[in-house]
Amino acid sequence: MITKIEPKILSGFMELMPAEQILFNKYLEIIRETYEEFGYVPLESPMVEYSNVLLAKIGEDTKKEIYRFQRNDDDLSLRFDLTVPLARFVAMNGQSLAFPFRRYQIGKVFRGERPQKGRFREFYQCDIDIIGNGSLGLINDAEIPAVIYRLFSKLNLGEFVIRISNRKVLTGLVESLGYPEKTDEVLRIVDKLEKIGQESVVEELTKVGLSLEGARTVIKFVKIFGTNKEILEQLRKMEIENKTFDEGIEELDTVLTKASEFGVPEKNLKLDLAIARGLSYYTGTVYETVLVDERVSGSVCSGGRYDDLAESYTNVSYPGVGISIGLTRLFSQLLSAGVIVPEASTPSKVMVVTLDNDLKFALEVAKELREDGIKTEVYTEDDKFKKKLSYANKIGVPYVAIIGEEEIKAKKVTLKNMKTGEQEMVGVDGVIKKLKRDEIHS
Amino acid sequence: MITKIEPKILSGFMELMPAEQILFNKYLEIIRETYEEFGYVPLESPMVEYSNVLLAKIGEDTKKEIYRFQRNDDDLSLRFDLTVPLARFVAMNGQSLAFPFRRYQIGKVFRGERPQKGRFREFYQCDIDIIGNGSLGLINDAEIPAVIYRLFSKLNLGEFVIRISNRKVLTGLVESLGYPEKTDEVLRIVDKLEKIGQESVVEELTKVGLSLEGARTVIKFVKIFGTNKEILEQLRKMEIENKTFDEGIEELDTVLTKASEFGVPEKNLKLDLAIARGLSYYTGTVYETVLVDERVSGSVCSGGRYDDLAESYTNVSYPGVGISIGLTRLFSQLLSAGVIVPEASTPSKVMVVTLDNDLKFALEVAKELREDGIKTEVYTEDDKFKKKLSYANKIGVPYVAIIGEEEIKAKKVTLKNMKTGEQEMVGVDGVIKKLKRDEIHS
Repeated sequence: MITKIEPKILSGFMELMPAEQILFNKYLEIIRETYEEFGYVPLESPMVEYSNVLLAKIGEDTKKEIYRFQRNDDDLSLRFDLTVPLARFVAMNGQSLAFPFRRYQIGKVFRGERPQKGRFREFYQCDIDIIGNGSLGLINDAEIPAVIYRLFSKLNLGEFVIRISNRKVLTGLVESLGYPEKTDEVLRIVDKLEKIGQESVVEELTKVGLSLEGARTVIKFVKIFGTNKEILEQLRKMEIENKTFDEGIEELDTVLTKASEFGVPEKNLKLDLAIARGLSYYTGTVYETVLVDERVSGSVCSGGRYDDLAESYTNVSYPGVGISIGLTRLFSQLLSAGVIVPEASTPSKVMVVTLDNDLKFALEVAKELREDGIKTEVYTEDDKFKKKLSYANKIGVPYVAIIGEEEIKAKKVTLKNMKTGEQEMVGVDGVIKKLKRDEIHS
Repeated sequence: MITKIEPKILSGFMELMPAEQILFNKYLEIIRETYEEFGYVPLESPMVEYSNVLLAKIGEDTKKEIYRFQRNDDDLSLRFDLTVPLARFVAMNGQSLAFPFRRYQIGKVFRGERPQKGRFREFYQCDIDIIGNGSLGLINDAEIPAVIYRLFSKLNLGEFVIRISNRKVLTGLVESLGYPEKTDEVLRIVDKLEKIGQESVVEELTKVGLSLEGARTVIKFVKIFGTNKEILEQLRKMEIENKTFDEGIEELDTVLTKASEFGVPEKNLKLDLAIARGLSYYTGTVYETVLVDERVSGSVCSGGRYDDLAESYTNVSYPGVGISIGLTRLFSQLLSAGVIVPEASTPSKVMVVTLDNDLKFALEVAKELREDGIKTEVYTEDDKFKKKLSYANKIGVPYVAIIGEEEIKAKKVTLKNMKTGEQEMVGVDGVIKKLKRDEIHS
């Protein structure tokens, strides 16, 4: 006997069972559809790129997470996000693109993080970005929440809040406190507020050189509470004399007004000065999205405005704004918390089963159903009828179309609803009518 | 000034421009839809696996093509097909699956071949397989051509022929000629007939030990010509006394009969004894599919029956039958031959443009259109009207909805057909009606 190899997969690489995969694909489809509803164009970059291209601007911490390898004389890496490939694409093809360029990309990225619960090394990102050539209007910063609002409404995962801020506001405050060279660091630390808590943030801020008073002012500032309008008013009253600060407020005001014109309700778009985003890459508006359902933690969708997408590759300035959904982590959380529950293990709406093993009429019926777009499986094996039905039960197909002598004579099938047990003899058009009606009502 | 990095991608890694990607996605969608119409379940395996798992049964030639690398203590490889991951999956999860298990997987695989025209190192495979537990009826070998027939009819790439044979027939012949230990080699050589020609095949056959007469008999045999029925009759008349040979004929007969019951016309399913497939992995029925259009060369879709899918990992026997489409190569050929031509660079059906730069009403209109499922882009930048229209022309959006003072007053838009130039002032429901009508007629 040949020695068998143990079949196993790498930890941190999600592989779903059929019913789960069907559900996952449903979410992918809703995301894709919504992005296209707003006119975003699909792009697909390679999984593997030259390391020097992909790692042009990456920090040392993230560098360790890259799957990087040598192949012949080439130093290659698996992509770790979809933004760097977009930058490279725009730098390469800018001349033949129409701007503003709205693109979406949905695909897997790879990060060899230390494996821990809820973290994945291979995971889906679902990104949209709007890229301008030289300039890009602020209204686009309002379109992003409009897309996210429509998308999460359709995903039907309960209440959600898009938290929005503008890095210029906090940056301006820190400058006005006398730390103009520490703004990026301060924002990086403030971004951890929810994770590490107020005390630790104060401690870290003083460690990087802020006075205790300065650190407390920052904390007090990012905790300013109220309606969007109230927060903006409070900020204006503070009379901080700083150009960046003022710009940030004006931008926030504009973006919130425009977002409301896009139809985003205020309860779904909350100004929150604690949203800073860790990356200095972002230069203006920043977003994070949270589900109100406590079983799903952390931001499910984050992004922001950046001044210069492709500066590593070209002197042409491409400002942009975008957002990314980490679908693998979100799906995994929803699944393990029981917020979503997989249903059938088959895409089929109906399975044709025969009482004996002559499939001729069954195949005809299946062909007609498929031609009407109805997903139809035929039970092909010479098994006992009971075994056929138990298979139908196991995969969770909603209907079976049973064919015996009588049905063949009548050129009909006995259509059985697998949930209610109800059954009736109908022609193929009867099956089509019934299943199409079900589709509309589901 | 910072030194810029040259933005470039690896050769053999396809990256499409927006209009091409939109078309590519349309094909992906038709493939996915058709596979699901027959009840195949989507699966998605990781891109990266343990090398010892992935390379369990691989030949030395293919081994060189694998993207393989070390990460910490793990020896990893990028997947090079979707069949090995399926075998690993079934071996791991067989107990919780329902059999016969129909699965499809559509995804990228990686092979570091020497780059040459029309060859890709990263490419899409679109696979279906039907897996039995212990046994699997021959009727499934007839379902595969039924799926392919429906799929290529829908893809609308002109006439196509699924060539079918059964390895047992040729194997039986070679055995009866006195070379029972050379069957795999002979079939591997015969498989190259179309590529290298008759003379070279004869030469190679004699090199591996066949007599010149034997080699010529093999050539004569695989060139037997006629209708499917005529070929089967000729084979039966040959009175070769070999069990494998007889089995092959009977299986072919059954599969052809059943395929016809599935509704596959004979002109699309041609018995061709020259189809051998290079891989000894296949044990019965084999398929190749060719387009009649001469601008597309080679098989666009190949596969066959195998006795034991997961023998590297388990003692449980999982016979199966399946087929794979190499979509990247097919698409690239169709594109460069001009068989298919990309159209719009946007998924949008309509773009809303304003005469001045007040977008309030434009955003309302867009929201209503999207709620009716109409893909709608808003031109967001403060540009001159002419520039807005030239953008619309460049992306190839079929309609623009123009909004000026008059339209705002009337709560209507001027809908302009970008192909014909026709325009009329209509309400939002007028736009919806018009665009939905277009959709049905396209």
